[in-house]
Amino acid sequence: MYSVTVSGHVFIAHSLKNEAFGPAARLHGATLLLEAEFSRPELDERNTVIDIAEAGRILREIAQTLDYRNLDELDVFKGKLTTIEYLASYIHGEFGKRLAGRFGGTLKVTLRESPQAWASYAASLRA
Amino acid sequence: MYSVTVSGHVFIAHSLKNEAFGPAARLHGATLLLEAEFSRPELDERNTVIDIAEAGRILREIAQTLDYRNLDELDVFKGKLTTIEYLASYIHGEFGKRLAGRFGGTLKVTLRESPQAWASYAASLRA
Amino acid sequence: MYSVTVSGHVFIAHSLKNEAFGPAARLHGATLLLEAEFSRPELDERNTVIDIAEAGRILREIAQTLDYRNLDELDVFKGKLTTIEYLASYIHGEFGKRLAGRFGGTLKVTLRESPQAWASYAASLRA
Amino acid sequence: MYSVTVSGHVFIAHSLKNEAFGPAARLHGATLLLEAEFSRPELDERNTVIDIAEAGRILREIAQTLDYRNLDELDVFKGKLTTIEYLASYIHGEFGKRLAGRFGGTLKVTLRESPQAWASYAASLRA
Amino acid sequence: MYSVTVSGHVFIAHSLKNEAFGPAARLHGATLLLEAEFSRPELDERNTVIDIAEAGRILREIAQTLDYRNLDELDVFKGKLTTIEYLASYIHGEFGKRLAGRFGGTLKVTLRESPQAWASYAASLRA
Amino acid sequence: MYSVTVSGHVFIAHSLKNEAFGPAARLHGATLLLEAEFSRPELDERNTVIDIAEAGRILREIAQTLDYRNLDELDVFKGKLTTIEYLASYIHGEFGKRLAGRFGGTLKVTLRESPQAWASYAASLRA
Repeated sequence: MYSVTVSGHVFIAHSLKNEAFGPAARLHGATLLLEAEFSRPELDERNTVIDIAEAGRILREIAQTLDYRNLDELDVFKGKLTTIEYLASYIHGEFGKRLAGRFGGTLKVTLRESPQAWASYAASLRA
Repeated sequence: MYSVTVSGHVFIAHSLKNEAFGPAARLHGATLLLEAEFSRPELDERNTVIDIAEAGRILREIAQTLDYRNLDELDVFKGKLTTIEYLASYIHGEFGKRLAGRFGGTLKVTLRESPQAWASYAASLRA
Repeated sequence: MYSVTVSGHVFIAHSLKNEAFGPAARLHGATLLLEAEFSRPELDERNTVIDIAEAGRILREIAQTLDYRNLDELDVFKGKLTTIEYLASYIHGEFGKRLAGRFGGTLKVTLRESPQAWASYAASLRA
Repeated sequence: MYSVTVSGHVFIAHSLKNEAFGPAARLHGATLLLEAEFSRPELDERNTVIDIAEAGRILREIAQTLDYRNLDELDVFKGKLTTIEYLASYIHGEFGKRLAGRFGGTLKVTLRESPQAWASYAASLRA
Repeated sequence: MYSVTVSGHVFIAHSLKNEAFGPAARLHGATLLLEAEFSRPELDERNTVIDIAEAGRILREIAQTLDYRNLDELDVFKGKLTTIEYLASYIHGEFGKRLAGRFGGTLKVTLRESPQAWASYAASLRA
Repeated sequence: MYSVTVSGHVFIAHSLKNEAFGPAARLHGATLLLEAEFSRPELDERNTVIDIAEAGRILREIAQTLDYRNLDELDVFKGKLTTIEYLASYIHGEFGKRLAGRFGGTLKVTLRESPQAWASYAASLRA
């Protein structure tokens, strides 16, 4: 199995409005380090898993829709608890839309909120 | 598949009393960076894999039983070769005891002894 | 010259309300990695620059006043542009209050907002 | 499942002679951080996945065949596009030759070319 | 004293044509992680040391003149031994040209060629 | 001012036998990441601050006298509190002996015991 990973980051504000989250229920923020890992069993004719420059462009494009934003104010997250595991799956979905039919394999999205905590979501994409 | 990881560290002394380990057979020590990665296929109703604050508390509780200790003197490791892969499985077992019946999924414990070497143990836990 | 550094982190939201900051003028957030480096020319009778456990406790105490907060809503930052270089000097001041007369030397506070950008403030404290 | 990882690095020059690679088609270079992760379901009688010192020696031996080299001039890469995913599989093959019959399990080789991009190749080796 | 640092990286090939450099005399390459740290005693009216976005833009502009290049073929390095300490001072000079009269203070440029070795050059720039 | 830094690590056991150190008074251990930063105002005729390969060799030579050791049993530390700031100055002294008359400038030795704590000692060496 081959994989290629590209990374970036976003600065976001949000609140987790449920008392179970303790202080994280207050409006606060985080630098989220994003990693998108693409895996598939074979290389293409250029010896690549995916066009790494294209993968990076899509990562930055998705990042720009979140960067320097208060997630509580974005329609797409209305009524959602924007935990990092949920956000990992959201970003996975955004990759899916933009890569539709162009990458077949597994995509794993990882979000690191601090050196002490991170989350990921992995699922298949169809070529 | 979703995952969440929390991390910490412990300062331990130990010796690997078998000539195969060369200089590591002498009493020495290490800073072990601990990572506990919890994975399962679905999020719960709070959009989480596990209560990250609770996972962190358990990690610190387990860490405290080892931190600033000479493992050679702990009963639990009598006659054991405390390699980092063995210690990863030991810490996995400690999580299993403390989470019994409360987390169903895969737990992977990683121990980093230096930027050049690390080990892990992964196995299922039953809810 | 000897130095000792302790580190931690806080999750904060804020906005830099001045058009010069572009998208950072919007409400967003960051994980700020905090480092406090204490320096002085000689060690004390215990071969330390400062009691490292005490330094860590003060760092966490200061961090708690900011962690999981929207800085825009704190009185202490009313009308201030809370850039990371400004926040570094603010945290330096908080250390100064708490260490008054107990540490003589230089304190350098560093705040890392991402792997690509960080800031610091260094100044003397009097024993 | 248990795993042990050892790491190192090499300084190489190369060019990716295909217009699809944009500026990477020019002769340039990279520091490649190498990680070799060995996994298997059980520990041996010494509580190890593999002799970590031996794994490190083999990593350095393989690294030396590439370190401070222009890959474009090595016979083994003639006519090949030496992408990092391809190089990960090449290094995997070199481990396979040197470990033949001595390690049974999965080997995953990861190559990091920058903090923003890395690749890996994983496949089984037979004891 | 206040400071702000921005970072980036370049992929370069080069050779150090002097037998004292051993294997580094051969054509090889490196990923150079670049850090530019700007320091001055006071903040400006926006609570900044320097416009961090502008500093990042200049860093990328300078990086682009070196990225994906064989330094041995660039006129500016003809007959020069392009050690990382020399390259740090070269990049410092490029910042000086682009910032002429716009930043007064100290600029320190750091180049990391691996996790095990890095170099820097620091000198004043006049506003 | 130019600088070059080389790094390595050692695995040590020790105890800080003074009640002020709390749990660190017990026998425990640490992975100490070592950094040796050499600084001077000018480059030599090879555009270097110091022969980086030679600096690395000396670092490894010093590291070997401590690696996989219980510092409490070494004569050189008899009756000493081996804090990381003290050990930084000890390693500085070892460099001084080995470089006597061969490097003039400042040497700063940094020891990182965890991602949350590190120490350093800096002083001049005479050529």
